[in-house]
Amino acid sequence: MTKRTFEDFTPGLVIENGPRLVTREEIVAFAAEFDPQPMHLDEEAARASILGGLAASGWHTCCLMMRMACDGFVLNSSSMGAPGVDEVKWLKPLRPGTNITLQTTVLDTRASNSRPEMGFVKIRMDVLDDDREPVMTLTTSMIMGRRAEAAAP
Amino acid sequence: MTKRTFEDFTPGLVIENGPRLVTREEIVAFAAEFDPQPMHLDEEAARASILGGLAASGWHTCCLMMRMACDGFVLNSSSMGAPGVDEVKWLKPLRPGTNITLQTTVLDTRASNSRPEMGFVKIRMDVLDDDREPVMTLTTSMIMGRRAEAAAP
Repeated sequence: MTKRTFEDFTPGLVIENGPRLVTREEIVAFAAEFDPQPMHLDEEAARASILGGLAASGWHTCCLMMRMACDGFVLNSSSMGAPGVDEVKWLKPLRPGTNITLQTTVLDTRASNSRPEMGFVKIRMDVLDDDREPVMTLTTSMIMGRRAEAAAP
Repeated sequence: MTKRTFEDFTPGLVIENGPRLVTREEIVAFAAEFDPQPMHLDEEAARASILGGLAASGWHTCCLMMRMACDGFVLNSSSMGAPGVDEVKWLKPLRPGTNITLQTTVLDTRASNSRPEMGFVKIRMDVLDDDREPVMTLTTSMIMGRRAEAAAP
């Protein structure tokens, strides 16, 4: 498959990747390393928390999203990375045993004025659960290489 | 040490945690699991990328920040979590061998109108390198329990 470049990310394009099962073991292992709050480690403590039961760290959801995006379309594109992320919202608890789907929607694109070889692709990324309800949503801008012919002066 | 509650997070308060060494091994291991873009995995590929050399995934920086925050003050507070994050900015590459410091600044606080037992603590979190230059900055609002006496009707 040809690598996707800036020109392929047209506003309105929706890319779907997954599903991917999220296990209790990986939720607890991630939390133990990066976010050892009791609500991400222990079922009983989690029941007493605002999560109402064991759920993944929101940062874990971000990381799972990134991996699904890499496997789904980022690695097979001219992506150069992203300077940051806007508005990460953790909308509902991500429970063990959930099959998550990543839905990426292209919101807007803009060619770089100063760097003709690249452009910016603004996307919304929604992580959906088995009921296709969003557990997380975020927006970010990917820096994306343009096709050689488009970048030529 | 007494647990910090909502009342202890006054605007202007600065909490510093660290330093913590970030190794090449953990940068590559994290990338292999969650963000396998060549610029986070391979020195040569990274040199050809906009990072100009091997650097941690931005998500790895977020995860390291969260762990430092947990160890530094979150676990010893009445924090109930956070509904999301605003404006994550990856400002410069996080290189292997860097000793990072987390600087948390309280920007604003607001007692909940509907839930007298909690309030919101808006913070900025800056991850600084050895030169105390920020490699990442973000803002978020923690949901924080209030002291029993403050929450009483």
